[in-house]
Formats: sequence, C-alpha cells, structure tokens
Amino acid sequence: VAHGSRTRLDPAARRAQLVGLGLEMLSTRPLDQVAIDDIAAEAGISRGLLFHYFPTKRDFHAAVVQAAADDLVDRTDTDPSLPLAAQLRAGVEGFLDYVAENRAAYVALLRGAGGGGPELRAVLDHTRDRITARLLDRLHMAGPTPARLWLVARGWVAFSEEVSLGWLDHDDMDRAEVVALLVDALVALAALAGRDLDP
Amino acid sequence: VAHGSRTRLDPAARRAQLVGLGLEMLSTRPLDQVAIDDIAAEAGISRGLLFHYFPTKRDFHAAVVQAAADDLVDRTDTDPSLPLAAQLRAGVEGFLDYVAENRAAYVALLRGAGGGGPELRAVLDHTRDRITARLLDRLHMAGPTPARLWLVARGWVAFSEEVSLGWLDHDDMDRAEVVALLVDALVALAALAGRDLDP
Repeated sequence: VAHGSRTRLDPAARRAQLVGLGLEMLSTRPLDQVAIDDIAAEAGISRGLLFHYFPTKRDFHAAVVQAAADDLVDRTDTDPSLPLAAQLRAGVEGFLDYVAENRAAYVALLRGAGGGGPELRAVLDHTRDRITARLLDRLHMAGPTPARLWLVARGWVAFSEEVSLGWLDHDDMDRAEVVALLVDALVALAALAGRDLDP
Repeated sequence: VAHGSRTRLDPAARRAQLVGLGLEMLSTRPLDQVAIDDIAAEAGISRGLLFHYFPTKRDFHAAVVQAAADDLVDRTDTDPSLPLAAQLRAGVEGFLDYVAENRAAYVALLRGAGGGGPELRAVLDHTRDRITARLLDRLHMAGPTPARLWLVARGWVAFSEEVSLGWLDHDDMDRAEVVALLVDALVALAALAGRDLDP
C-alpha cells in the first residue's frame, strides 16, 4: 500500500488516509494500542499535523471505530433482491469473515479489555441497532414489527456475537458449521416469534 | 434495616455490612453513583474507617460488583433434583426478577454507561462463564461437552441478556411471555446442537 508520504493531500483525503491507516492497524491490535505516533509516521506527517485533523487522540480513535462499525455494517449487507435464505447466509458469512479479519480489535471491543470507553460502547450499541433494524426490514413483515420479533432479532445479534467469539477461541469448528448454526438459529428463533423463514 | 450505626462490628461483619449497603444502593443507580461518602454515612462510620476496610474506592466497587454477581448466580440456581424443564423455567424466572429488581445497575453494566471499567467487564465475563458451566452441567451430557452445545449455551446466555434489556425497554410484553420465549429459545437452540430438551 502506498501511504502517500510527503505528498500533499486535500483535507478530506488526508483524514480518510489517516482513518484508513488506523483501521489497518486495528485489524491486528486493540484500539488502545493504535498509537498516534505510529499513524503519523506511517502517513509521513508530523504528530502536530495529525492533531490538526483530529484535535485529540480520543477524536481520532472515535473516527476509526466509527469507520470499523460502518465497515461491519457494509460487510454484512446483502442484495435485497435475493431470496431471504440466501441473504441470511451471505450476511452471516460476511460477519464471520469480518470477525476473523479483525480478531484482536473485535475481541477487545466486545470483552472490554483495552480501549472500551463509554463512547465505544455507544458505537457498538448503535451498530447493533443498525444491524437489527436492517434484519427486521429484510424480514419485510407487513405492518409494525411485533415486540416478540424485535426481541428475537436483537437477541440473535447478541447470540451471533457470542458464538463468533467462542468460534475464535476454539479451533474445532469450521466456518461453514458456524455459518449453518447461526442461520439455523435465526430460523428457529424467528419461528418462536411467528415468522416462518424456512424456504 | 438497622445499619448498626455506632455499634462495634468485627471486621468481617463490618465488611459484609458495607458491601450490603453498596448492593442496596446499586439496585437503584449505576455503580459510578454508589458514593463512598453515602455508604459511610449510612453505616454510621467515618470515610477513613471505610477506607480501612477497602483501601480504594475501586476496591470497594469491585467487592460490591462481585457480590452482585454472586447474587445473580444464586438467584438463577435451581434444584438439580427437579425435571430439566422445571429447572429451566425457575432459572429464567430468577434471572428476570433479578434484572427487574436491579434495573439501573444492570443496564449500566451491560451497556457500559457509567462504571464499566475493565475489572467490571471481567467480573461480567466470569459470571457468564459460571452460568454457562452450570447450565451445561444441568444438561448433564455424558462425556465431554460437544463444541456446538457449548457455543449454543454461551450464545443463549447472551441472547437472554439482550432480550431482558429489550423487555425493560418495552412495556408491552409481560414477564410470563418473556420467560416462555427464553425457555423455548433454549429448547430450540439446544436441538440445533443435537440435545433434545423437550419434555
């Protein structure tokens, strides 16, 4: 990757470059180890210039985490014209790939070890809300979502996070088996809320 | 409640009294609002004497959170001589009652708003481990727990936490309906791991 060191970038491009470097670093370490000095060095700019774009370390970290959350929401998005079963499978696969690629930061964020301040928890909660809302939208019920289906969808997102962490901890289950488990779990849980997803 | 103000208590009794006062306070507010000064005043002792028992505020908060976690583990315990279905129902009922009674602190702990430092997250994770281990024990499989059943049990605990938070947010579902949803969810999820819990 060419980091454009010593090149002039317009402000928006520079911000995007810095956040991108943060994201890259975040794939291998928890957020509290994403150091400003390392980012500035990678970008070929001074620490002072970085603080021109992000007034505090906390602002920079917030921008990186927001970008990571947006990335997760994108990676789990699916083509709404596909059958529901295919969308579910594709969404779950995107989720597990994201988790596997961003293991260190993901575990740290969910387990709260390293850099899990209130702002980050808020981004995490908001991301869960976005994913749940999209899921419910794709289940395209007519009329308002019944409370039970909403609870089940929110609960399944938490179930999936926990299962993905367990999968990272244990080498004895392959990705395909975990994908099937998560898809089957949603089908079983949605049935408890009166929504039949079986093809 | 007689708080034993101005009475002499032996050290173990005094510690227990202080933690008990902290627990009482924690049922109505997040941990970071459980103030040392209020606790000392309630106990009728000086701030200095409280710090004799708990060298730092963080030590005191850790003791209170550990006691709250022990309380949750107790409240969700069930009589192992009962049929599995009855145990499941009793455990889930104990869990929801605990959540409803400790609403403020429970929401704050899970959502990370207020007092959710790494130590607290560690207590939370350890509590999930204890509850999952007991659940798997009660499902009394012969031989080692299959990875899939372990994932499902861990995931169901997370599912239950999320559903309980959603229940607190929405008034349109009664406790009996949420109990049934959580029990039915475990039955459905365990079936995906090859464990038939249907009576």
